[in-house]
Amino acid sequence: MEVKSVTCVAPVNIAVIKYWGKTNEKLIIPLNDSLSGTLHTDHMCAKTTVAISSRFTKDRIWLNGKEESLDNPRLVACITEVKDRARNSGKLTEEELQWNVHICSENNFRLAAGSSVIGRLVYSLSSFFLLSVFFSVYALATLYKIDGDISAIARRGSGSACRSIYGGFVQWITGTNPNGTDSIAEQIVPASHWPEMRVLILVVSDSRKKISSTSGMQRSCETSELLKHRVAKCVPERMTEITKAILKKDFETFAKITMQDSNQFHAVGLDTFPPCVYMNDVSHGIANLIHTINRIAGRTLAAYTYDAGPNACLYLLEKDVPSVLAAVNYFFPTDRPKGEYYRGLNVDVTSVPKELAEVKDLAQWPDNNALRYIIHTKIGEGPQIVSETLLNSDGLPKRLA
Amino acid sequence: MEVKSVTCVAPVNIAVIKYWGKTNEKLIIPLNDSLSGTLHTDHMCAKTTVAISSRFTKDRIWLNGKEESLDNPRLVACITEVKDRARNSGKLTEEELQWNVHICSENNFRLAAGSSVIGRLVYSLSSFFLLSVFFSVYALATLYKIDGDISAIARRGSGSACRSIYGGFVQWITGTNPNGTDSIAEQIVPASHWPEMRVLILVVSDSRKKISSTSGMQRSCETSELLKHRVAKCVPERMTEITKAILKKDFETFAKITMQDSNQFHAVGLDTFPPCVYMNDVSHGIANLIHTINRIAGRTLAAYTYDAGPNACLYLLEKDVPSVLAAVNYFFPTDRPKGEYYRGLNVDVTSVPKELAEVKDLAQWPDNNALRYIIHTKIGEGPQIVSETLLNSDGLPKRLA
Repeated sequence: MEVKSVTCVAPVNIAVIKYWGKTNEKLIIPLNDSLSGTLHTDHMCAKTTVAISSRFTKDRIWLNGKEESLDNPRLVACITEVKDRARNSGKLTEEELQWNVHICSENNFRLAAGSSVIGRLVYSLSSFFLLSVFFSVYALATLYKIDGDISAIARRGSGSACRSIYGGFVQWITGTNPNGTDSIAEQIVPASHWPEMRVLILVVSDSRKKISSTSGMQRSCETSELLKHRVAKCVPERMTEITKAILKKDFETFAKITMQDSNQFHAVGLDTFPPCVYMNDVSHGIANLIHTINRIAGRTLAAYTYDAGPNACLYLLEKDVPSVLAAVNYFFPTDRPKGEYYRGLNVDVTSVPKELAEVKDLAQWPDNNALRYIIHTKIGEGPQIVSETLLNSDGLPKRLA
Repeated sequence: MEVKSVTCVAPVNIAVIKYWGKTNEKLIIPLNDSLSGTLHTDHMCAKTTVAISSRFTKDRIWLNGKEESLDNPRLVACITEVKDRARNSGKLTEEELQWNVHICSENNFRLAAGSSVIGRLVYSLSSFFLLSVFFSVYALATLYKIDGDISAIARRGSGSACRSIYGGFVQWITGTNPNGTDSIAEQIVPASHWPEMRVLILVVSDSRKKISSTSGMQRSCETSELLKHRVAKCVPERMTEITKAILKKDFETFAKITMQDSNQFHAVGLDTFPPCVYMNDVSHGIANLIHTINRIAGRTLAAYTYDAGPNACLYLLEKDVPSVLAAVNYFFPTDRPKGEYYRGLNVDVTSVPKELAEVKDLAQWPDNNALRYIIHTKIGEGPQIVSETLLNSDGLPKRLA
């Protein structure tokens, strides 16, 4: 049996200018431009194998070893569009284009962190299913030998995931074409431009049921007056300013805009009716700590940003990782085993500066389990094709849940 | 020794359209109109005696039995303005106008609830000192026989307190005069217009250090883009709509605007840099509960509103108090003694509706002490002159701390 397959490893990204709201729900055309850093795949990534064969009797998908239904309209839209583009390029035969597709996707963060964390961690509550659509698109595009931009296809899987098509810092521009063809991701700088940039992800304990970002966005568009002002005035100015800051490696400006935009995104959530509340007391406690350490240092050591969930993502420079982590550890103490608590890049944690431990109005968090764990990572490259495959020679998952 | 004195009892108010930001810090001229309900003095009030005498050697002030410094510029401004107005009216002799003033103020909520609660409860973090300036102004105006509007003087003591000069529902209009003379409070309807209106104040446990509303407002004016849009567009529309709703006794509309405006005020706080966060997880949990019971009932049972602190104030109609309180008690259980926990008007708490106890995604709050106590009150009248005095015949407090 002939099986043609491609496997890719794809990164996640953390937005510094947030995407919130669509002008077209079906085509996933965003209300405003957004911008993110792509994280290194060493510490968080998804691996996806896509395969086609004349013997496959139907399209099938397995996520983390469990078969899922393929009747999701977003996935169907992506597969259809990939095939249409492939047909136009003429690199596959019409027969091959008729073959059914098998998709198998696994993520290391999910395996490492429990089933629901990735959703909240990186893409909020868009399900891993939708993420996998994006991961599949990259692999499918390779398999079907598609040239040119594929972020417009990936976008239809999971909006913000389309920025993961490139490494470094990436913008997703809204475009002006009503059919969404120019709503695409573009790389601003590769990862090598700002090699000192680091990211700490503080995974916050939380048990509340959350509003999915898809329905939260819809609700904001319908009810938030402030969202209109954000889209019309604030985001365009910030996109220009933060792009300049990234090009100049001006961390102070980058950090300030990052924090302001995160705050404004959550402000719009609160202005929504009923409100969409994603940050919790621990999230706000971390933000307050970051403002405090920046004030005491007399310069900006770190910037926080929060997606549609309580976890804090800190952007900071390599030289400041030890002291920021020391402050986090001092004010959010943990009793979890060190090997389980710290993940990703190694780091030597210095002791917390005396002046910080003595700050009035900043007390150690009373609960030793406010943070579940911390991932230390950096900016990395976009998706990569790898040789190891998740499907066996029959096109079935090597590993089942 | 001749001592002329006046004692007044003055109410507190809870805004439904929030005041946030000034165009003139010194004159306390607000960025936008605001609107509040005045609460009945039976359950929360401050009593203030002001006295003048030829024998008083200097101006003095006692708050809750403790002498405080009189060098606060707001208080000095108020006393000066009262005397100027009195001089113009000619009802006191020039000699009497030269006499020094003694002010003594006590509040029942503070005595009942611990020193810091009233600040957060009613006027956020404006101190009781500033509140007392307002209370003093009313009594001083009576003592000095001032005619006409005195809210413009009271405003200079504590901005939002000026609305407490009237009972019922009261608006504070920004005015257009740069000197603030037309930035005054006006009654929309007296308490008798909507006698079914009730207020539940859920006092939320909290230990965080807060940003004072004075400095929070300044910071918002300097850094929040969204505040501009709120002031220019959202508040004027809401003032018109909620006034109509109050006149028509249209609770659904009144409640929706109240909740939206509270949310928007906190959204602006979050959009401020660094952010001003006043609500906590319990506050958001209460808001979520209110949305849920309203949804299940198919109509609006209650509206929440939050000032610059975590306490929830619920506006609701008399007929719905038992079921709303039942829901609050079920989802925020307490182990405090009933007599200490429930304050104000009596109420029979019905059992929580079965369909509510079974709502998915709505769990009982894990901490039995999330709420400190609950005040049940209603809309009441403005300040009243009473005969009982807080000062003895020497003009000194009868009760010292």
